[in-house]
Amino acid sequence: MVVKVYGPACASTKRVLLVLIEKGIEFETVHVDIGKGKHRQSEFLKLQSFGVVLVIQDGNCTLYESRAIMRYYAEKYKSQGVDFLGRTIEERGMVEQWLEVEAHNFHPYAYNLAIHILFTPFMGITPDPKLTEEIEAKLDKGLNIYEERLSKSKFSW
Amino acid sequence: MVVKVYGPACASTKRVLLVLIEKGIEFETVHVDIGKGKHRQSEFLKLQSFGVVLVIQDGNCTLYESRAIMRYYAEKYKSQGVDFLGRTIEERGMVEQWLEVEAHNFHPYAYNLAIHILFTPFMGITPDPKLTEEIEAKLDKGLNIYEERLSKSKFSW
Repeated sequence: MVVKVYGPACASTKRVLLVLIEKGIEFETVHVDIGKGKHRQSEFLKLQSFGVVLVIQDGNCTLYESRAIMRYYAEKYKSQGVDFLGRTIEERGMVEQWLEVEAHNFHPYAYNLAIHILFTPFMGITPDPKLTEEIEAKLDKGLNIYEERLSKSKFSW
Repeated sequence: MVVKVYGPACASTKRVLLVLIEKGIEFETVHVDIGKGKHRQSEFLKLQSFGVVLVIQDGNCTLYESRAIMRYYAEKYKSQGVDFLGRTIEERGMVEQWLEVEAHNFHPYAYNLAIHILFTPFMGITPDPKLTEEIEAKLDKGLNIYEERLSKSKFSW
């Protein structure tokens, strides 16, 4: 059965799609019209209680939260395509550590910066240089450590 | 070898201790004197690059990020004590989903609220009722969903 991925336009969904593609898992995407508020309607809320756009349906399994879905497919297809989880429990521990670092030390600031710089103009708001600087400072704080770790990986840019 | 847990006074460390206790894993705690800035000194930074107080040392394995450590011990001692990860890949997917919900929809607001109400008075700052209300509103948004899920678990309060 082909995996259904709701909300392909969202950034968090792209994380999931990356894993599906690297693993060679067949999927189809289902557009969720945020502009029309479809994510707040009961049909979608049955799949995703918080009304946040990203859900997958895989047979009887319905899951949300991008990093949970990534772990799920990394585990389900461990021996297919790229192995994301490491060969030992210690290696997996290290993978988990850096997934958490990304989630708590990188993503919140990168996300806020993207929202503030890219999206506020569409809402008729001029980005505030002081706020931009504040978010950048928080992002920079851990960026060297994060980049240093990435530089040791074949997945680095 | 006994597991060393640095920074037992911190809230995130208590999450880790809970897993160690439930699993019956022997550990000893190492105090990190935040007041004296020990977490910003090179000795500690060798263990935890970000200077955030919580690290474990378990033989050759050094790990940080509470939820990564929790997963590590849940996996390493899967068949000892309480099984936190579920019996199937689908059950583990569900565990991962709710771990992420806790990390992104519950913890940030509960943490900010605790900091704002409990700690600002020690810093000579009066908690701002408007800010308190704003954080509470964000927390309340997902609390019913979170509580509903917890009510189905034997770990619920």
